[in-house]
Amino acid sequence: MCRLMLYLGPEARLSSLIVEPRHSLIRQSVHSEEREEPLNGDGFGIGWYASELSLEPAVFRSITPAWNNRNLQNLARVVTSDCVLAHVRAATQSSGVNEANCHPFRWRQYLCMHNGDVGDFRLVRRKLLASVCDEAFGNVYGSTDSEHFFALFIDSLLGLDERDPALRMAQALARAIDRVLALVGSAGEGGDSYMNIAISDGEHAVVSRFTDAADGVPESLYYFTGQLYPDIGPKAKRKGTQAVTVSSERLTADAGWAEVPPGQIIILRRDRAPQFVDARSGEVVAPPARAARHTAA
Amino acid sequence: MCRLMLYLGPEARLSSLIVEPRHSLIRQSVHSEEREEPLNGDGFGIGWYASELSLEPAVFRSITPAWNNRNLQNLARVVTSDCVLAHVRAATQSSGVNEANCHPFRWRQYLCMHNGDVGDFRLVRRKLLASVCDEAFGNVYGSTDSEHFFALFIDSLLGLDERDPALRMAQALARAIDRVLALVGSAGEGGDSYMNIAISDGEHAVVSRFTDAADGVPESLYYFTGQLYPDIGPKAKRKGTQAVTVSSERLTADAGWAEVPPGQIIILRRDRAPQFVDARSGEVVAPPARAARHTAA
Amino acid sequence: MCRLMLYLGPEARLSSLIVEPRHSLIRQSVHSEEREEPLNGDGFGIGWYASELSLEPAVFRSITPAWNNRNLQNLARVVTSDCVLAHVRAATQSSGVNEANCHPFRWRQYLCMHNGDVGDFRLVRRKLLASVCDEAFGNVYGSTDSEHFFALFIDSLLGLDERDPALRMAQALARAIDRVLALVGSAGEGGDSYMNIAISDGEHAVVSRFTDAADGVPESLYYFTGQLYPDIGPKAKRKGTQAVTVSSERLTADAGWAEVPPGQIIILRRDRAPQFVDARSGEVVAPPARAARHTAA
Amino acid sequence: MCRLMLYLGPEARLSSLIVEPRHSLIRQSVHSEEREEPLNGDGFGIGWYASELSLEPAVFRSITPAWNNRNLQNLARVVTSDCVLAHVRAATQSSGVNEANCHPFRWRQYLCMHNGDVGDFRLVRRKLLASVCDEAFGNVYGSTDSEHFFALFIDSLLGLDERDPALRMAQALARAIDRVLALVGSAGEGGDSYMNIAISDGEHAVVSRFTDAADGVPESLYYFTGQLYPDIGPKAKRKGTQAVTVSSERLTADAGWAEVPPGQIIILRRDRAPQFVDARSGEVVAPPARAARHTAA
Repeated sequence: MCRLMLYLGPEARLSSLIVEPRHSLIRQSVHSEEREEPLNGDGFGIGWYASELSLEPAVFRSITPAWNNRNLQNLARVVTSDCVLAHVRAATQSSGVNEANCHPFRWRQYLCMHNGDVGDFRLVRRKLLASVCDEAFGNVYGSTDSEHFFALFIDSLLGLDERDPALRMAQALARAIDRVLALVGSAGEGGDSYMNIAISDGEHAVVSRFTDAADGVPESLYYFTGQLYPDIGPKAKRKGTQAVTVSSERLTADAGWAEVPPGQIIILRRDRAPQFVDARSGEVVAPPARAARHTAA
Repeated sequence: MCRLMLYLGPEARLSSLIVEPRHSLIRQSVHSEEREEPLNGDGFGIGWYASELSLEPAVFRSITPAWNNRNLQNLARVVTSDCVLAHVRAATQSSGVNEANCHPFRWRQYLCMHNGDVGDFRLVRRKLLASVCDEAFGNVYGSTDSEHFFALFIDSLLGLDERDPALRMAQALARAIDRVLALVGSAGEGGDSYMNIAISDGEHAVVSRFTDAADGVPESLYYFTGQLYPDIGPKAKRKGTQAVTVSSERLTADAGWAEVPPGQIIILRRDRAPQFVDARSGEVVAPPARAARHTAA
Repeated sequence: MCRLMLYLGPEARLSSLIVEPRHSLIRQSVHSEEREEPLNGDGFGIGWYASELSLEPAVFRSITPAWNNRNLQNLARVVTSDCVLAHVRAATQSSGVNEANCHPFRWRQYLCMHNGDVGDFRLVRRKLLASVCDEAFGNVYGSTDSEHFFALFIDSLLGLDERDPALRMAQALARAIDRVLALVGSAGEGGDSYMNIAISDGEHAVVSRFTDAADGVPESLYYFTGQLYPDIGPKAKRKGTQAVTVSSERLTADAGWAEVPPGQIIILRRDRAPQFVDARSGEVVAPPARAARHTAA
Repeated sequence: MCRLMLYLGPEARLSSLIVEPRHSLIRQSVHSEEREEPLNGDGFGIGWYASELSLEPAVFRSITPAWNNRNLQNLARVVTSDCVLAHVRAATQSSGVNEANCHPFRWRQYLCMHNGDVGDFRLVRRKLLASVCDEAFGNVYGSTDSEHFFALFIDSLLGLDERDPALRMAQALARAIDRVLALVGSAGEGGDSYMNIAISDGEHAVVSRFTDAADGVPESLYYFTGQLYPDIGPKAKRKGTQAVTVSSERLTADAGWAEVPPGQIIILRRDRAPQFVDARSGEVVAPPARAARHTAA
């Protein structure tokens, strides 16, 4: 089922985001608290943007667990970025542990990662691939449901005219979720889908929290508006924007963490507070009352 | 372009086959002699049968080079088998170095490995996948042309009624080669295909040597009838059959090595001399004069 | 702290020993039950003997976790042996996760693995290395306390005249434990040592259960006399000997599992019931009453 | 024997240094031109400084070859640094391929890498370790001659009073070379040592080119004063210093490459031209005539 974390804000050091918090993602790789099975040891991945150097984000992925990976600890100490995605994986039996199956996945400037499952994926895979354009098809290198879903997202994005890039991503994500559910409905055997998906282009990000399971309870997902980490000096001030962190589990004991409402997509922009849209229709919804309270704090 | 080796015969020790020969496959991983580029360092794989224990063969694959892999050296020393496939890889840029892309690939009791290229594979991949049955489609986990070709083989095999299992494999291989060329012809841009493919079910094996390049020169492929290795005692006598080794390059200085004729598939059986069929029609052809001389020696 | 398992008996399939038991070592890599921290995901190793082919045992080690390693699953299915050692690792911070630090360690025909810690190892390492002969020193490739302890064992073994090979190993193990405690006493700062050590030469094995902690409670260790696994046919009957399995945790719900008494070393031979010696003096002690009852059952 | 590269200068992108040059280090991992054996495929490592974030440099090491490592390509694209060390390895049989044996090695703010061999290292190792202080001893995690030599350097450095940090490093390097030769002389059997060693603290660097072989021909080593790479904008101008690159082989066809004279150590500082000292006495020598001409160009 995996755990994931996304950060958009002023430049921050990777270690402040993924190593140092009390319940950091690396900690969650060993001891996640909101999954039945606490272990996410089947590899990990980090993606980050260094926009002044390259529009294409960097990705560092490994099939060894995150908790004792020295390269990761080294990178985390010296890499800074204003947009970071990180993921620790719990592999399902059907898709092997190899680098092609580690999140985040990349296409052009976009990164995508997933916490969840596409229902009956083995039955759905073929129709899914047949339904997307060559560009999206050609970006599939491995065998995970997550990477195949990303192809649906790419295909949906390419078909949209929306000019606002954040809204376009959110609409494409909603459309892709809608399409995958339709595919599971027609080719699957009634399996539930869990679709906590995080996607960014380096300047904006969208993260869904969704399931079609009968009980309506998706995987956990939280967000925090504000700065979680120590100031790293002049660099951090380059962009006078707010920081937002979205994570499968609360990284700290701060009261400011709020749940992303079930069935919604949170939209992050550098210059304004998070916005919410419906995870299937893509239409804007009012911000959650509880979350509003926290962010106002 | 890779290098490969297949052995069918009395039980032999892995190290006798892949480590000890003067120009062993492990040596070829560093210094192949019949490729322009001598290096095959992008991982390796070995498959072998232990029929008394499991119909399904064992596969050991790694993304590190073969030449300094301690696990491989250990296994080679203690594993014996009467059917072995081994492969060292030179990855092309488009498909990454990960375990899912290491040969040999497996389906049921079959193992498959490839030395060569499917022409214009990126353009062909989609149509290829669309042309095979669900069973064959579901066996594709990575992004190599080789594994996709194996899906064509599986699909072809499932459609054949031939009762002789060795002939059935040869016909399926010929049909798959024919199909892949048709796919390249319709979806590709005139790229050449190099199809040295080795497939076994543990009791029989087929290996093609084929290209449709204008010069008609396929990748090198040799075979040797007889015992290349020291006797390993009573176990080796369990099956009173002849030994045949097929390899991209001659493993030893023995005069007995003969070329597999271009455009043909060599068929190996435990109880009789190698047989040859045409690599596209699958029809039996007379054994090559030169090879006959050598094997008679 | 790690988990370990050793088997000596008629030829058995690896999977019967390390995969299939209800609470197999692979299961313990994710969910050990008798450690505070249930996870042993920092690599693993298997050593096994194929005496008819090589006096030197084979070792297969990897830095990825055991639970999702496909190579391990493949090997376990087709490899049989009459003497197997297997280990899953939980690395301490000071020694990195790399293959040189994975157990079992090898010297000549001997394999060694460890569940525990040498107290204050960083302070002790130097004196320990200075105290052993060149042969033992030259066998240290990594930085674990376990491999360094093995050097003490090698040095102790080389200094003993005892002719019975099993007793010689037990005496060397006892002497090495005694020596390491003396080294910790003189160079350390009072740290406790936990010394569950398993060593085999392929025909005999010794496993200690020892600590000098004030509470006198060593790491858990159990043994089971008899056959835990399905018969694998004629091969299994080659040696008409009893089977004994020693393991950090009980692999099955069988009532026959007995604790190795704290402070003792269990000695396994192919042709007689387990014997016990004191873990520091190396002197034979009476078999534990409770264990005797179980093995009689 | 390995290949290595060191850069000290204005901030540059990693890819400009190790990927893009016509004969880059990554190219040398496959096709080095000044070694008998062109292959350096047994892992690699990069170390770099991000001084504003951490005095301790970052190290990224891997046991897979450099030429097809996607993580390396990603990092190279987005990481910039004003001091970079990079190494591709050709392992000798005696020391295994594992991360602890990949260069560069680190101690405090120092990084060290080696192209060459300590003569008769197996015979020398013990005495070498016995001759260094605890601090230096405690920094040895693997089994390479290179990492053990670094312990000699550390020990030598700690014993020097020299205030100029660059000169202190050069003197410690010369002293360590002298000490290792004495150790080989007393414990070895007349084996030659090849000691091309690069060490940096992030602000200065020293690189030796030395052998005691009878023919007096050390491994190749070149340096280039000036900018080899495209300008990366404002960041690059932060430090108004010259750039110097030192490399086992010339990275480009530029006429400006000069050989480091045999038997000397080149000293790099941010604010002045390279300086040379004798590799055994540590005494300053006149700059090489030929090199002077080139750097004047």
